[in-house]
Amino acid sequence: MLKYRMKREKSPGLPKVHAKEYQFMGRVWVEGKESTFLGFGRIVLLERIKQHGSITEAAKSMGMSYRHAWELVDSMNRQARTPLVETATGGKGGGGTRLTEAGEKAIEFFWGFHKRFKKFLEQEMEHFPL
Amino acid sequence: MLKYRMKREKSPGLPKVHAKEYQFMGRVWVEGKESTFLGFGRIVLLERIKQHGSITEAAKSMGMSYRHAWELVDSMNRQARTPLVETATGGKGGGGTRLTEAGEKAIEFFWGFHKRFKKFLEQEMEHFPL
Repeated sequence: MLKYRMKREKSPGLPKVHAKEYQFMGRVWVEGKESTFLGFGRIVLLERIKQHGSITEAAKSMGMSYRHAWELVDSMNRQARTPLVETATGGKGGGGTRLTEAGEKAIEFFWGFHKRFKKFLEQEMEHFPL
Repeated sequence: MLKYRMKREKSPGLPKVHAKEYQFMGRVWVEGKESTFLGFGRIVLLERIKQHGSITEAAKSMGMSYRHAWELVDSMNRQARTPLVETATGGKGGGGTRLTEAGEKAIEFFWGFHKRFKKFLEQEMEHFPL
């Protein structure tokens, strides 16, 4: 959730508390065929999977149950044109989990989207007439 | 809550369902000193108060309890620099409720904000790489 404090121009007659009177808030997410496809929490989960190479470790790092993390990954993979996360089973070293190119693109896009949204809210705040 | 379907360029090889695969969603609101100051529901309530000249009738038109509507109005008035709604008590014709100039400005600003947010989401959708 984004949160921006209202910055007002300083005015000698205005009590200081008024300078931070309002905050512009917002949330953005992308829905897929079934439900949420990408949102803030899902993107952080993808980043942790990239970092740890494991859904178990990624979940642990976020204080999330493995089951919930697995369900989020499954939901993203089912709704994407091509999966965002892939798990190699068996072989030497056992099953590693990694992001696909689509997974990398999802992260990159989302943070850009988030940053532009932040800027949008800041711009709106400047026009607030109250 | 805003909701936009992904419009993809038509491609003969692409199943039609893919054309509306993703939807960009969002919410925006303004917080004040205590909690939410302005949001979609509060703005609609202000519009109904303007229309009906009464919190009771405005609440009824939205299927909302009078108590809840009154609390929302009180929350907006407490958090605004100058009240958004004023009630004239007594006098000929009894107590009418009407919007102040600040109330009118709040409505006007919020719908502009909402419209620009819609446009922002549409623009973001165009750059979505998945």
